[in-house]
Amino acid sequence: MLPQEVRTIIEEMKAERIRGASYLAKRGAEAYLKLAELLTGEELFDALKEMRTEIIRVNPTMASLYNLIRFIPLTNNPEFVRAKAEEFIKLSEEAKREIGNIGSELIDENEVIITHSFSSTVLEVLKVAKMKGKRFRVILTESAPDYEGLALAKELEVLEIPFEIITDAQLGLFAKKATLALVGADNITRDGCVINKAGTYLLALACHDSGVPFYVAAESFKIHPELRAEEVEIVERKFKRNHFLIRNYLFDITSWKYVRGIITELGILVPPKEV
Amino acid sequence: MLPQEVRTIIEEMKAERIRGASYLAKRGAEAYLKLAELLTGEELFDALKEMRTEIIRVNPTMASLYNLIRFIPLTNNPEFVRAKAEEFIKLSEEAKREIGNIGSELIDENEVIITHSFSSTVLEVLKVAKMKGKRFRVILTESAPDYEGLALAKELEVLEIPFEIITDAQLGLFAKKATLALVGADNITRDGCVINKAGTYLLALACHDSGVPFYVAAESFKIHPELRAEEVEIVERKFKRNHFLIRNYLFDITSWKYVRGIITELGILVPPKEV
Repeated sequence: MLPQEVRTIIEEMKAERIRGASYLAKRGAEAYLKLAELLTGEELFDALKEMRTEIIRVNPTMASLYNLIRFIPLTNNPEFVRAKAEEFIKLSEEAKREIGNIGSELIDENEVIITHSFSSTVLEVLKVAKMKGKRFRVILTESAPDYEGLALAKELEVLEIPFEIITDAQLGLFAKKATLALVGADNITRDGCVINKAGTYLLALACHDSGVPFYVAAESFKIHPELRAEEVEIVERKFKRNHFLIRNYLFDITSWKYVRGIITELGILVPPKEV
Repeated sequence: MLPQEVRTIIEEMKAERIRGASYLAKRGAEAYLKLAELLTGEELFDALKEMRTEIIRVNPTMASLYNLIRFIPLTNNPEFVRAKAEEFIKLSEEAKREIGNIGSELIDENEVIITHSFSSTVLEVLKVAKMKGKRFRVILTESAPDYEGLALAKELEVLEIPFEIITDAQLGLFAKKATLALVGADNITRDGCVINKAGTYLLALACHDSGVPFYVAAESFKIHPELRAEEVEIVERKFKRNHFLIRNYLFDITSWKYVRGIITELGILVPPKEV
């Protein structure tokens, strides 16, 4: 049985509606730190085994959670767990910073960047570009039904980055007005597909149709070492509007052929040329 | 000056949020009938001239309104106006019925039909297919921000046609689960583009990517005799969510290369083969 304090963190992670795979992986690492504070010996070992299931259950679509549980060893020694959890947090912070540096170099003067949903990694790229003194504007979606887009809009307001908000259905219309597309990812599968907030695939298709380069910003811990796209469970969270049930898969799948590059802390991964 | 009773109809047309180009053209014809009841001679002639502007202003994107005002002559004779307005209504009702007949033949047993927004012409096709005893199901979008999709869902409920409602952003995901796409149109331009509720273009791209045939159901009075797509004014109706202004173009543009066919009362128009 997991201690109540750790359960509380996991429940909070499950309830999160705005922030994505980077944030949840970090919160997961904090849950491990808490565990290392509270348990030791065999109790710790058993709890770590339970965590492998519980953390994945938060959102089985996210590769970041899968890579987090693989990163933390099954051990009796709380010091070892603490050290690895701290290392995960440090690496993820460094990765985000480095993606900001690399990604911001893609942004030219007067760029019009279209994005979908709220990715903290995309936000980092925009923030660094702004710090570098670049002028650009952002087109973003409200991202129904949880409206993460409005959370991104608030961040851009603070950063004084100009933006426009559109409904999700206008992604095609506004892709034509953009010069660059930039989204995050929850999972990059072994076969090179990008799994991200539903609607990302539509944006990628529209960019492809209009010749707008489509980039993904993602820490390398979002790359799934084992699963192909069709093997990943896509989480659904149905809801009601009026008396109608609305289907609500959170993610869709974009094939690598529509992706110009994946900006990671290791550099920009580009798809293999088609032969 | 238009009589108040005619103004009221035009104001109602402007306020309409759910029904589209077929309905508004019919209401416009009814406004002409009212005009023919109230005015005659030069007063009528001047009012008819004013109607040419006022009817278009209801929604400048809709070719049906453009074709309606061209159909009604500038004349002093109310009998002539009445006869033409009645003819327009009769022809549009016949057109819808015939599209129902032709379109329903495209629906095979166990078809999974995906649509977007609420088109009364698409509804007619589904209704006739159901009457012919065909079994099929429908995937439809809620269509933010006015939720016309829920109005369609209510109609399908009454007809006992099974359906699922999705958020607009899932159009790509669910296009892969469909066997046929069917949407309406507000304007079919001289260069063969389909202008319909924003998001239609995204559905067309997703269908193209997955090999799902994409059809448009539209009366021939939705074909614009003069304008190319880039010449059509796309109506926008911005709105606020929280304190943010949201851009809201009502329509987007789908190139004929993504359209398998346009079902009209004259038959199914197919795009020219690419050379």
